[in-house]
Amino acid sequence: MATDFRRKEILPEITGQIVNSYHEIGTINHLGHCPLPSYNEISTLLEDLSEILFPGYRRRQNLHFGNVTYYVGDLIDSLHDTLTEQIARALRHAFTGGAAISCDAVIERDFEAEAQEITLDFLKCLPDLRSLLSKDVQAAFDGDPAAMNMDEIIFSYPGLEAITIHRLAHELYRRKVPFIPRMMSERSHSRTGIDIHPGAQIGHSFFIDHGTGVVIGETCEIHPYVKIYQGVTLGALSFPKDGDGNIIRGSKRHPTIGEGVVIYANATILGGDTVIGANSVIGASVSLTKSIPPNTIVTIEKPSLKFREAS
Amino acid sequence: MATDFRRKEILPEITGQIVNSYHEIGTINHLGHCPLPSYNEISTLLEDLSEILFPGYRRRQNLHFGNVTYYVGDLIDSLHDTLTEQIARALRHAFTGGAAISCDAVIERDFEAEAQEITLDFLKCLPDLRSLLSKDVQAAFDGDPAAMNMDEIIFSYPGLEAITIHRLAHELYRRKVPFIPRMMSERSHSRTGIDIHPGAQIGHSFFIDHGTGVVIGETCEIHPYVKIYQGVTLGALSFPKDGDGNIIRGSKRHPTIGEGVVIYANATILGGDTVIGANSVIGASVSLTKSIPPNTIVTIEKPSLKFREAS
Amino acid sequence: MATDFRRKEILPEITGQIVNSYHEIGTINHLGHCPLPSYNEISTLLEDLSEILFPGYRRRQNLHFGNVTYYVGDLIDSLHDTLTEQIARALRHAFTGGAAISCDAVIERDFEAEAQEITLDFLKCLPDLRSLLSKDVQAAFDGDPAAMNMDEIIFSYPGLEAITIHRLAHELYRRKVPFIPRMMSERSHSRTGIDIHPGAQIGHSFFIDHGTGVVIGETCEIHPYVKIYQGVTLGALSFPKDGDGNIIRGSKRHPTIGEGVVIYANATILGGDTVIGANSVIGASVSLTKSIPPNTIVTIEKPSLKFREAS
Repeated sequence: MATDFRRKEILPEITGQIVNSYHEIGTINHLGHCPLPSYNEISTLLEDLSEILFPGYRRRQNLHFGNVTYYVGDLIDSLHDTLTEQIARALRHAFTGGAAISCDAVIERDFEAEAQEITLDFLKCLPDLRSLLSKDVQAAFDGDPAAMNMDEIIFSYPGLEAITIHRLAHELYRRKVPFIPRMMSERSHSRTGIDIHPGAQIGHSFFIDHGTGVVIGETCEIHPYVKIYQGVTLGALSFPKDGDGNIIRGSKRHPTIGEGVVIYANATILGGDTVIGANSVIGASVSLTKSIPPNTIVTIEKPSLKFREAS
Repeated sequence: MATDFRRKEILPEITGQIVNSYHEIGTINHLGHCPLPSYNEISTLLEDLSEILFPGYRRRQNLHFGNVTYYVGDLIDSLHDTLTEQIARALRHAFTGGAAISCDAVIERDFEAEAQEITLDFLKCLPDLRSLLSKDVQAAFDGDPAAMNMDEIIFSYPGLEAITIHRLAHELYRRKVPFIPRMMSERSHSRTGIDIHPGAQIGHSFFIDHGTGVVIGETCEIHPYVKIYQGVTLGALSFPKDGDGNIIRGSKRHPTIGEGVVIYANATILGGDTVIGANSVIGASVSLTKSIPPNTIVTIEKPSLKFREAS
Repeated sequence: MATDFRRKEILPEITGQIVNSYHEIGTINHLGHCPLPSYNEISTLLEDLSEILFPGYRRRQNLHFGNVTYYVGDLIDSLHDTLTEQIARALRHAFTGGAAISCDAVIERDFEAEAQEITLDFLKCLPDLRSLLSKDVQAAFDGDPAAMNMDEIIFSYPGLEAITIHRLAHELYRRKVPFIPRMMSERSHSRTGIDIHPGAQIGHSFFIDHGTGVVIGETCEIHPYVKIYQGVTLGALSFPKDGDGNIIRGSKRHPTIGEGVVIYANATILGGDTVIGANSVIGASVSLTKSIPPNTIVTIEKPSLKFREAS
C-alpha cells in the first residue's frame, strides 16, 4: 500500500465545502427535521403483513391451527406499535410541509393518536384483504397454463407480490397516510418491475403475468377479472395546467378498465376519459387513447413488415 | 408519544378475526403442512453454485490452483446436504398436492433418497455447465462493443446472471424437481428484469443485452448463437382449452428460434408453431405470429410518423 | 431422513472433475489473480455517498447543522480509504489484463497513489453534484402531477436513484476508472430497471418517470431539461466492424437528445448520427433512426387497429 496519508489533510476542507452546499442548496437536505419514516421498518412491516396474509409460506414453517393464533397475535401486537410510530412520523412531516420545525415544538395535533386510529382501522381490514387476495390467486391459476398449483403462485409469482403490496398500500392511501404507501409501492416496483401507484382502484380477481415494465397510474379504475401482461402502461395522456402553467394535481388522468378485460404485452392505454368496455381484448403493442365498447377485440392491423434476405 | 395503550385491548379480537379467515379461506394458507423449500436456502445455494462456476470473481478472493480444491470440495459437500433437503421438501409437498398431511404420516416414497439421487446427478453436470457458460461469456463479448473484457461480463452483466441461473434451474426442471426451479428463476427475474421460465430449452452461445422486460416462455426452443435485446417477448399466442373451458397445460405454446438469429429490442414473437429460420434478424418492435424462413431480415415498414410543430 | 451418507463418497470425484474444468476452460475463472473490486464495498460506498448528497433522508436521522459536519467528515474519511483501495484493485486488474500475475510482482506503477489521486479529485466534485441533483429533483417535481413534494421524490423515486448513481459513476468513468462505474450502474439497473451506461453524458434537470426498461447507451449525449418515460431505448443502430469482422469499440453509436425534449413510453431512438432537435416531443412507441428538427412533435400515424366482436 502506497497511499499517502498526508494527502488526507485536505479531507476536512472537502467536508467543509460539502457542508457549505447544505446551506446553499437547501431543497435537498433534511437537516433539523423530525425523523422521516424508515425504509427498513416499512420493509419489515410488509414481510410481517405477508406472514399474516399467507401464513406458513415463507418465514415461519411448521405453523398449524394449534399455534397460529400465538404467532399472528404476536405479529399484530408488534405491527400495531411499529405502524403507529411510522404513520405518526409521516403525518408530522406532511403537516410541517418539510419546514425545519423542532420535534419538541408545541403542535396542536396529536399525531400519535391519529396514527393509532388509522393503524387499528387498517389492521381490521386484513381478513377482507385475505378474501380479496384468494380471488387474485385463483385468477392467476385460471389464467396461466404454466401454473402447476396455487402454492406455486403464492410462493413465487411476482404479479401476486405486486397486487398484495398494492392492496395494503391502497388501504393506507385511502386513509390519507402520506409517504408510506409510496414507499411500499416502490419497494414492490424495485422487486417486481411492476409500478402500481397506491391510488389505483383495482377490483377483485386481478392477475398480472410476468409483469416487468407494467405501469398503472394513480387515478386508474380497474374492474374485476382483469388480466394484464408485461409492459402494459395504463397512463396519462397529458397534464392539464392552471393559468400559471403549473400542472394541476389530483384530476382523473388515467383510464378505466371494464370487467373481464384482457390486455396483452406492451399495450399502452392513456387518458382519464378512456374507458375499455367489459370483456374486451386489447392486443399486444396496441396503443389507445380513446374508449372502446364492450366485447371488442382490438389488434394492430396486419403489421406491415419488410422482408429482405440477410447479406 | 400519545399512543393510547388501552386501545390495544382490541388487538386480540383482530387476531381472532384473522385466524377465523384461515378457516374460511383455506386456499391461501399453509397450516399443518410439511415445510416448503426455503427462499433463503435457495438464494444461498445459487450464490454457492456461482462461486463454483466462476471461481474467484465474487465472494472468495485470493483463490489459486493450490487452494481451490479445498474451497470447492467444501462447497460441494455443503451443497449436497442442503440441496438434498430442499428437493426432498419440494417432492413431498408436490406428492401431497398441498393437502394437510402430517410430516410423520407413513408415505410409501423415500423422498430423501430420491432427492439425493437428483442432487448427485445435478452436481455431476456442473463441469458441462461451465463449458456451456464459457460460450455464453464469449457470445456476450463478441456481441457488445461496450464490453472491455470477459471479466467485466462475468462480473457485472445481468444477461449472464440470468442465463447462468436459467441453466442451473433448467437442469433441475429436466429432473422434474417441483417448485425450486421456479424459485430460482424468479430470484433472477427480480434481480435482472429477465423472466426465463425454467422449462425453456436454450442452446449454447446465448446472449441477452440489457435484458429488462425479456420474457421467454416455458416451451421455447432456442438454437445456438442467438442474441436478444431488452423487452423481447417469446410468448404464447393463446391457450388451447379442454371441453370444460379449462386451459390445457403442457402443450408447446412458445416459438422456436433458429441458430444465429438476432432479435432487437421490444420485438414480440408468439405461438408454439412459430419458427424463426436460422440467421434471420428481427427488427426492434416487430410483432410476429407466423414463421419466417432462414436468412430473412424483418423490420417494420417505414413507420408512418406524423410531424407537426410544437406550440 | 433417509439420506444415504455412503453415497457422499463420490463427492470428491465430482470436486475433482470441477477443478479439472478450471484447467480446461481457463477463460471464466479468476484463480491466482490479485483481488477484484468487491460488490459489497461498492454497495456500501453508494449508500455512504447518498447519505452525503441527501443528508438526513435515509440511514441517519436527527441530523442538524450542529452535528452534520462530524457525520459527513467521518463518512468522507472512510470513503477516502475504501474508494482508494477499490480503485487501486480495479487499476491493477485492468493493467494486468486479467493475466495471472502475482500480487507481489514488481510492477512499475504505483496503483494506490494513482487511486488516491482519483479519489480526492472525485470527492471534491460532490458539492457540484449536489447542485446538479437539486435541479434533477426540481425537474421531477415539475414533471410529475403525482408528486406531492420534493421530499417524496428524494425519498422514493427510482428515477432519482438512477440519475444519482449515474452521475457518481460517470465521474469515475470520466477519470478512466475501470470496472467500478459499471458495477455501480448495474446495481442501479437491478434496483430500478433503468440501465444507463456510465459513459452517457447527461445534462442538468433530467427526469425519468417510472423508468423500468429504460436503456441509455454509452455514447449518448442528453442536453438539459430532458424528460423520458418507461421503456425508452436510446441505443445503437448497428456496430461498425473492422476488416477482420470484429466490432469496433469506442465510436459514437448512440443518439443526441436536444434541450427540453420529452420522450414518451417505449419509444426507441437509435444511431450515433441521430439528433433530436431541442423542444421536440417523441410520442409513445415511436421508433426513430433519423434526426428530427427542433420543435417537432412526432407521433405514430393513427394506429390502424382492427376491431371485431369477441366471441
